Amino acid sequence: MKAEKILDEKMSRRSLLRATGKLAIGAAGLAAVSGGLNIFSKAEAKETPLPWPYEKIDPEEAGRIAYDGWYKAFCSYGVASGILVPLQKKIGEPYVSLPTEGLRLGEGGLVGWGTLCGSLLGATVAVGFIAPYDVGKQIMNEMLQWYSDTQLPIYRPANPKATVAVQTISNSPLCHLSVGKWTKAANKSLGSPERKDRCARVTADVAMKTVMLLNDWKDGKFKSDRKLPAAIYGITAQHNCNECHPNNIPTPVK
Amino acid sequence: MKAEKILDEKMSRRSLLRATGKLAIGAAGLAAVSGGLNIFSKAEAKETPLPWPYEKIDPEEAGRIAYDGWYKAFCSYGVASGILVPLQKKIGEPYVSLPTEGLRLGEGGLVGWGTLCGSLLGATVAVGFIAPYDVGKQIMNEMLQWYSDTQLPIYRPANPKATVAVQTISNSPLCHLSVGKWTKAANKSLGSPERKDRCARVTADVAMKTVMLLNDWKDGKFKSDRKLPAAIYGITAQHNCNECHPNNIPTPVK
Repeated sequence: MKAEKILDEKMSRRSLLRATGKLAIGAAGLAAVSGGLNIFSKAEAKETPLPWPYEKIDPEEAGRIAYDGWYKAFCSYGVASGILVPLQKKIGEPYVSLPTEGLRLGEGGLVGWGTLCGSLLGATVAVGFIAPYDVGKQIMNEMLQWYSDTQLPIYRPANPKATVAVQTISNSPLCHLSVGKWTKAANKSLGSPERKDRCARVTADVAMKTVMLLNDWKDGKFKSDRKLPAAIYGITAQHNCNECHPNNIPTPVK
Repeated sequence: MKAEKILDEKMSRRSLLRATGKLAIGAAGLAAVSGGLNIFSKAEAKETPLPWPYEKIDPEEAGRIAYDGWYKAFCSYGVASGILVPLQKKIGEPYVSLPTEGLRLGEGGLVGWGTLCGSLLGATVAVGFIAPYDVGKQIMNEMLQWYSDTQLPIYRPANPKATVAVQTISNSPLCHLSVGKWTKAANKSLGSPERKDRCARVTADVAMKTVMLLNDWKDGKFKSDRKLPAAIYGITAQHNCNECHPNNIPTPVK
């Protein structure tokens, strides 16, 4: 890959400098005068290979940051911040170089199009950097299933901005279905403070659940043999086929 | 925000060191001995605020990288690489610190769930770092509309891995609908070489179109007053309501 080639080239230049003793002198000199602010090791950390280092996060902390984050920049940013901001604090680089504000376009199922719930988009990006690919794939498969099957929201903020009395099951990871079923059951509009707080709480729920799965994985306890939908149906799909195809579920081409 | 607080603290420590002359000496010392490899400025670049610097990309290059990328790690990775790898080469940091492999979980509409087409997820993340928020929002709104309305795939690879004779309009940014309509029209299965090459070509198309809009913006030519769906329908939504609600489109709660 091109990116790897660039990194290889950078590493080669660095190795060359090391061989001539120049970089070693520079780094040692800088470390000696910078009073413990190890800039050189941070420059190295930029090239941290995937997966990035992970330390267990307190799910409650992730939930709080995610809930508050929703009121700053909505769902995708909220979940990404709930997972990544604690790692920016605990680990520093490479997480500090990933500004979670850059992930806010996932809001409203992608700028209001109601596709993938933005909270799950934020989780996907965070998990993609943290977990090895095969683990990340199963974590996200579990997350989408959990999101679809669970009465949400669960999270109770310490200082709620609105009363959210109703929980609903979306049966889908799509924002349109998740928000649509809740607004119908609660009889609240998209613009109501209750709907907003409902989504802020779902944002906290997704951040917390993702962190719990990541923590399980870190503890060697995460297991999933759940099949991916594409392997079950012969097409990339959710499990709620008859919701959009009530009378006639098409047969995929074999 | 917590992340900003961390950065503020880092900057304060750095300012303090600068004030005492220590960091200035260290940086100058390092620059002097490192033969032009400006490690110190790279360490600074880690804190590049959003939006990240952008230089116009050749859409053909983006398309080639995206098409090849699909065969390495599928759609989301492919588009992210098509946009970000040229910037890693042209600009370096902060792009080099964002390994596009971390974005591959968007594949198949999120690990095969058929939600948001992964190519659009890859584009969303790239645009989120490159464009100011309000511009990025309109670029992605245009992208989802274009994806929904356009006969795809358009891209013709120099060395195609399969023959793709059929184009289809998805009328939706969802992977399930995009892939489902194409496989039905082409009478090819999800696992066929033709379907795979179709998705690799769509990946190139999305990377190229995104780059064209980013280039327009860079030239001061990007304009969009298209409303976001949530503002039209009173719910986060696509425009193909009657595809899932053929007989009875629900009225959102007012």
